[in-house]
Order: sequence, then structure tokens, then C-alpha cells
Amino acid sequence: MSFSPLVDRLLEALRVLPGVGPRTAQRMALHLLERDREGGRRLVAVLGEALEQVGYCRRCRTLTEEPVCELCRSTRRDAALLCVVESPADMLAIEDAGGYRGHYFVLHGHLSPLDGIGPEDIGLDQLEQRLDEGGITEIILATNPTVEGEATAHYIAEQIRERGLTLSRLAYGVPMGGELEYVDGGTLSRAFNGRLPFNGE
Amino acid sequence: MSFSPLVDRLLEALRVLPGVGPRTAQRMALHLLERDREGGRRLVAVLGEALEQVGYCRRCRTLTEEPVCELCRSTRRDAALLCVVESPADMLAIEDAGGYRGHYFVLHGHLSPLDGIGPEDIGLDQLEQRLDEGGITEIILATNPTVEGEATAHYIAEQIRERGLTLSRLAYGVPMGGELEYVDGGTLSRAFNGRLPFNGE
Repeated sequence: MSFSPLVDRLLEALRVLPGVGPRTAQRMALHLLERDREGGRRLVAVLGEALEQVGYCRRCRTLTEEPVCELCRSTRRDAALLCVVESPADMLAIEDAGGYRGHYFVLHGHLSPLDGIGPEDIGLDQLEQRLDEGGITEIILATNPTVEGEATAHYIAEQIRERGLTLSRLAYGVPMGGELEYVDGGTLSRAFNGRLPFNGE
Repeated sequence: MSFSPLVDRLLEALRVLPGVGPRTAQRMALHLLERDREGGRRLVAVLGEALEQVGYCRRCRTLTEEPVCELCRSTRRDAALLCVVESPADMLAIEDAGGYRGHYFVLHGHLSPLDGIGPEDIGLDQLEQRLDEGGITEIILATNPTVEGEATAHYIAEQIRERGLTLSRLAYGVPMGGELEYVDGGTLSRAFNGRLPFNGE
């Protein structure tokens, strides 16, 4: 037996959310339908709006509904520093850790040939354009300290070596094999201050 | 620092879902925006449709987008048996357990004077009307084996005693203090078969 066709479709639709299985989907659907339709309608409105309007910042590729994000528009940031991260969540974690005053570039993933994710899929052509504009003197490769993150950092270093920019990688204060997004602020700060020269080898 | 205004509003809107905190909301928002906008749009469409169209069945008060639910319309059910449950999830659990062939009545909660939830809030006036129609000879009070569920069962038994119907309560095969929704099918079946006379004392 199951719920009505429409409720069953709702249970299935909720499964798109990460970590939501059949049981959780049922809890969510019944909660919204029985106890919080107003909250549900707000979610429908905001999610719909976000899905249509949120895109990538023209300069750093972070998620924003504006052409250029607030951080890229800020005049209080050091335009000579560019920190390359895998996701907007990593960018947020670094900002929350404090201490870094430069700009960012978001890859939205990492190189993964087996999944068919190549340089252009993580915006490296756009990164080259950004560097062509000049003004940037140091690039901090803050990809995740995972095999894929390391490989992506090495690839980027290889690509931009001849530009003669200072390349650095986060100090190994960050735990190997971990996800940057979950590193505590103190560790992230120390990793930033202790960043090391990086030659792509 | 935070995401853009619209993304921040999305994180907040996702918090209406049960068990979703700041971190989970961020994971969900980034997943939908970065990896599954199609799934997100499907969720927006189906949730919006469900919130507008899903209401209570005129006869049993379960959640359905139709005036009368499929189970109430079925001619293969025993119209003499009525099982009173707290939620549609409990109804689904009993159906999945199998063995019960009668109809249902969904309270959508239990009596809770402290929260201002009285008899009419759980549809007891509607239950009386249903009984006035006649045809029902036995009522199985399958409210949760919790203090509130027991109290609600006793209150209902009190209200309908003079009708001289057979009243029964699930056998105590169900664990006290638990939520009916989570009881395994075998236990639920045994509890149904072993149901005992109930006099509201």
C-alpha cells in the first residue's frame, strides 16, 4: 500500500535531496503537509527563485544571483592574491576562518578524467583569462587535500607555470584525505599563514 | 561572511524540513544548485502541487488529493471495522503489516490540552458523524502506545461508549513508549490479531 499518487510523487521528489532516503522523505512530506504548509510554500518560492536566478559570478564563479558577486566587487580585498578552491563551501570556510584578504576562483569540482571532467569543466579557461587581465601576483591553490584535489592543483600549477606567478599551496596543517569544507577555522588560518612555495612537482 | 542574499534565503527556507540544520541545509542547497537543478525544479513543481491539492479524505481524513481516498472508495474492505490512528504514516504501517481489512479514521495527532489541541482538532466531531451513518460494529483504537495516545484512546472510548460498539485496543505486542510508525510489521500483525476488549477504564 502507498499514499495517494501525488503524495507518492512528493516522496520521490524529496529523494533528490542528499542523504534523504524513503523514511526521511516520508517524515518530511508529512511534516510539510500536516504541520507546516506555510514553510513548504516559502521553500517552493525561494527554491524556485534560486534555481532560476542563481548562477556563477563572472569573475570568481561562486554562486550568486548577481553578475559579479559581492566579494569580487569589494574594493577592500587584495587584488594581487587569488585563492583557487573547489567549491563555494570551501570559500565560505576560508572566509569564516578569517585572515585571508584576497580574491577567489571557484572550480566547482576537481579534475576527474574517469568522470569526463576536464579542464574546461572546472573553468580553467576562465582562470587563464582572469590571469591575462593581470594584477595577480600570487595564486594559492586551496583545493581539497585529497588525491583529486592534489592532482588538480598540480595540473593548474603546470598550466600557469610560465606566467612566473608565486604559487602556493595550503600548509599541511590540513588533514590529508579530509574535506576542506569541514576543517576548523583555527587549522585553516594556520594553514593559510604557513602556506608553502609550490612548483607543481 | 555568507553566501549571496538569495542563497542565504534558500538555506533558511530549507530549515523548515525536519532534522535539517545549518550544515545540512548548506549541503542540500549546494547540491541542488551545483549538481541537480533539474531535480530541484521537479521538487519545486511537485511540492507546490501537493501543498495546494493534497487535503484530507472526506471519510477517513487521510492525506489525499481526491475528495475521498482510494481505500475509502474500495469495495473490498470490511465496512464494519474502523481503525482509528494518529497519522497517515501509522495507517500506512498497518497496511504494510497486512491482515487488517477494515477502514480507517486519521486523527492527525492526539489530544493535548496544554498545546490547545482539543477533540475537534483531531476530528472527533467528524468521527461521530461517521458513526451516525451506521454500518460500523467495531472500532479499533490504534493510537500510539504513548501517554498521549492512551489518553486519546480513553477519551474516544468515553465519548462513544453509549453506542454499544465493540471497542478494541491493539494488543500490547507494541512496545510501550514507542511510535507506532516504527513498529515492525510482524509485531503489528500480532498486535492486531491479539487485540483486546477496551472499556475506556
